Amino acid sequence: MQEAKLKIKERILMGSGPCNVHPRVLNAMSQQTIGHLDEQFAQISKEIKYMLQRIFQTKNELTLAISGSGSAGMETCMVNLLEPEDEVLICINGVFGNRLADMAERCQAKVIRVEVPMGEIIKPEHIEQALKTCQPKLITIVHAETSSGVLQPLEEIGKIAKEANILFVVDAVASFSGIEIKMDDWNIDAIYAATQKCLGAPPGMSPISFSQKAIDVILKRKTKVQSWLLDVLILKDLMTAGKRSHAYTSPVSNTYALYEALLMVMEEGLENRYERHQEMHILLEDSLKKTGFEFIVKPAYKLPFVNVIKIPKGIDDVVFRKELKQNYGIEIAGGLGKYVGKVWRIGLMGEGCREDSIQLLLNAMQSILKKCK
Amino acid sequence: MQEAKLKIKERILMGSGPCNVHPRVLNAMSQQTIGHLDEQFAQISKEIKYMLQRIFQTKNELTLAISGSGSAGMETCMVNLLEPEDEVLICINGVFGNRLADMAERCQAKVIRVEVPMGEIIKPEHIEQALKTCQPKLITIVHAETSSGVLQPLEEIGKIAKEANILFVVDAVASFSGIEIKMDDWNIDAIYAATQKCLGAPPGMSPISFSQKAIDVILKRKTKVQSWLLDVLILKDLMTAGKRSHAYTSPVSNTYALYEALLMVMEEGLENRYERHQEMHILLEDSLKKTGFEFIVKPAYKLPFVNVIKIPKGIDDVVFRKELKQNYGIEIAGGLGKYVGKVWRIGLMGEGCREDSIQLLLNAMQSILKKCK
Repeated sequence: MQEAKLKIKERILMGSGPCNVHPRVLNAMSQQTIGHLDEQFAQISKEIKYMLQRIFQTKNELTLAISGSGSAGMETCMVNLLEPEDEVLICINGVFGNRLADMAERCQAKVIRVEVPMGEIIKPEHIEQALKTCQPKLITIVHAETSSGVLQPLEEIGKIAKEANILFVVDAVASFSGIEIKMDDWNIDAIYAATQKCLGAPPGMSPISFSQKAIDVILKRKTKVQSWLLDVLILKDLMTAGKRSHAYTSPVSNTYALYEALLMVMEEGLENRYERHQEMHILLEDSLKKTGFEFIVKPAYKLPFVNVIKIPKGIDDVVFRKELKQNYGIEIAGGLGKYVGKVWRIGLMGEGCREDSIQLLLNAMQSILKKCK
Repeated sequence: MQEAKLKIKERILMGSGPCNVHPRVLNAMSQQTIGHLDEQFAQISKEIKYMLQRIFQTKNELTLAISGSGSAGMETCMVNLLEPEDEVLICINGVFGNRLADMAERCQAKVIRVEVPMGEIIKPEHIEQALKTCQPKLITIVHAETSSGVLQPLEEIGKIAKEANILFVVDAVASFSGIEIKMDDWNIDAIYAATQKCLGAPPGMSPISFSQKAIDVILKRKTKVQSWLLDVLILKDLMTAGKRSHAYTSPVSNTYALYEALLMVMEEGLENRYERHQEMHILLEDSLKKTGFEFIVKPAYKLPFVNVIKIPKGIDDVVFRKELKQNYGIEIAGGLGKYVGKVWRIGLMGEGCREDSIQLLLNAMQSILKKCK
C-alpha cells in the first residue's frame, strides 16, 4: 500500500473515547471502497444488524448503524419520537442529559427535567415523583454518563415506563459492548450507541434500535419528522438492498471497521468482554487507591470504563495531562461541567482496557507526580 | 498490520459515486485513531480548512467538513438558513432538487418549485420569472445533478440572487474538485459537498462553507436551529481546538482520509485535475459514440464526470450491469427517477477518471453487448 504523507503520532488513548483501534479493525477499514448498493455491502449490513441485535439483546427488526457520531443517534431518537407540544421527561445527571434536553427543545417538546447532581444516579422514586405532575410521551436516560463516571441502573425505570405506557429511550453511547444492556428485558423502546467507545472502532457511526412500540408511535405522527437525514422511515432503507439509493450514501469504510470490531466482540464473547472491563477496572482502582487517589462516584454506581478521580492538591490539571501526553504518549480526559480542573477521567475502553496500558499509565503518573512534588 | 477477517472483493467503481480510493488515502485512513481534542487533530483540521477554501475558491472563515454524507451538508444548509414561514425557491431538474424541497418543507418553509425536465438546466429567466411572484429568502440549486448528468451554470443566477438580496445555496456534492467552483465570485452564500465523488475519499464527511451574509442571517434567527447536530454555531466549535468538546466527536479516520485526498488534489493542481476530468470525458464520449451510443444531455450542459447514455434497444438493464459487475468487476449506475431502466450513468470521478479504467470498461461493454446480440 502506497504510504500517505500524513503521519500520525500514535497515542495510548485512556480518556473518555475515542479509544485505540485494533489493527484488525484498521486493516478492515483500509480495504478498497465498494458501492453502497453492492450486494457485498448488503451482506455486511445484514450481519452487522445481527451482531448489533446480539449486543443490545433485542429482537427489534429496526436495528442498524447510521452515519454520524453518537449525537446523531441521540438526535435520531428525539426527532422521530417527539412532536411539538409533546411532554418529555429528561433525566439529567451530567453533560449528556443536558444535550438530550437541548435537542428535545429544538423539537418543540415540553421538557420536564429530573435532575440530580453529577456523580449521582436517578432513582426510580425520582421518576415516580415526577410522573405525579406530568404525562410524558417518553423518558430519556443516559446509561453510562462519561462526564461523571456514573452507571445508571435501568431495569426498574424501564418497568415504571412500561406500566405508565411511556416510551423509554436510553443513551448507550459509552456502555455499548462494555457492560450488559438488555434492551428487550428492560423495556427499552429506543437506544443509540457509538462506535468509538467500548467497541473500539473509529468514530463515525451510531448503532440504533427501535422497538415495534416506538415504530408504531412514529407511524402515527401528525407531523413529518423534522429531519430528512434522521427520519427512521427513510433510514430503514439503508438496510434493504433494493432501496438503499433512497437514503444517503452509507459511510462504507466505517461500516467495514464496524463489522470487524463487532466480529471481534463476538469472538471474545460478550460475557468475557464485560468481565474484562470489570477486572481491569478493579486493577486500576486498587492501584490508584494505594497511591492515595480518591474516587468521586459511590462504589455501587461506578462505571468500570470511566474512572473519575480527584486531582491531588497542588497538581495543575493542564500541566499534568500535557506532560502525560507529550512525554508518555498517553491521553486521559479532564473534567467536564462542574468537574473542570477538579477531576481526571481515566477510560478503560475496548482495546485500551488491557493490563499493559494500565501499567504504562500508572508508571507514567507516578513519575510525573514525583517530579511535581 | 494484523489482517482482518473481512475480505472485500474489489470493484472498479464507475457509477455515480462512491468512486475508488487511492491507496495513499486508504493508508492515511488506516493509521491509529487519536483523540478529536488532540493538537495533531486541530492542526489537520486547520489545514483541511485551507484546502477546502482553495477548492471552493472562498475566503469564508466558516469552512469545514462535518460528519455525515452529502445529504448531511444539504440538511445543514436548510436547517440553519430557514425558519418556519420563510419562502424558499428550489430549482429542480433531478432527484437531488426534490430532496432539497423535502428538507425545506420539514423546516416548515414555503417551497416554491422552479422545475424543468430531467436533462435540462435551470435558466436565469426561469428564476427572474419566479421572482415576480415571490420573495424567497434563499434560492437552492444543484451544480452537478448526477441523476441526469447535467452541469448547471451558476454565475448568472448568483448575480440575480445577489441583486435581489437573496441567499444563494449550491449543492456541490458531485462537482467538488471535479469541475471549477467559484464560491465568492459567483455570490454563493452556502455550499455543501461530499468526499466520495470527484475527491475520491470514502463517504462519511461533507465539506461545507457559509458566507458572512449567511452567518448574519443565522445570527438574526428568531427561532433556534431545529437540529442540534447540524447547528453551524455549534459545528464551528469543531474548528476551534479549545472548544471541540462542545460539539460531537469528529470522525477521526475519515478526517485523515479527507486530509490526504485534499493533499493529492493540491499536488495535482486544481486546473490539471479539472482538465483530466474533461479529457477523460471526451475520450469516453468519443469511443461510446463510435459504438453507437446516444447521450441524453445536450453538449453545452454535459457533466464530464457523469455520462448518461441510452440503453441500446433489446438490452436488459439489470442483466447487463450484473454481468459487468460479476464478470468484469466494474460497477456503473442505472437510471434514477424517470430514467430507471432507460439509461446508464457512467462515472469518471477522481481515481476512476483514468484511461485504463475507461479501456477496461469499453472492452467489457463490447464483449457483453456482443454476447447479448
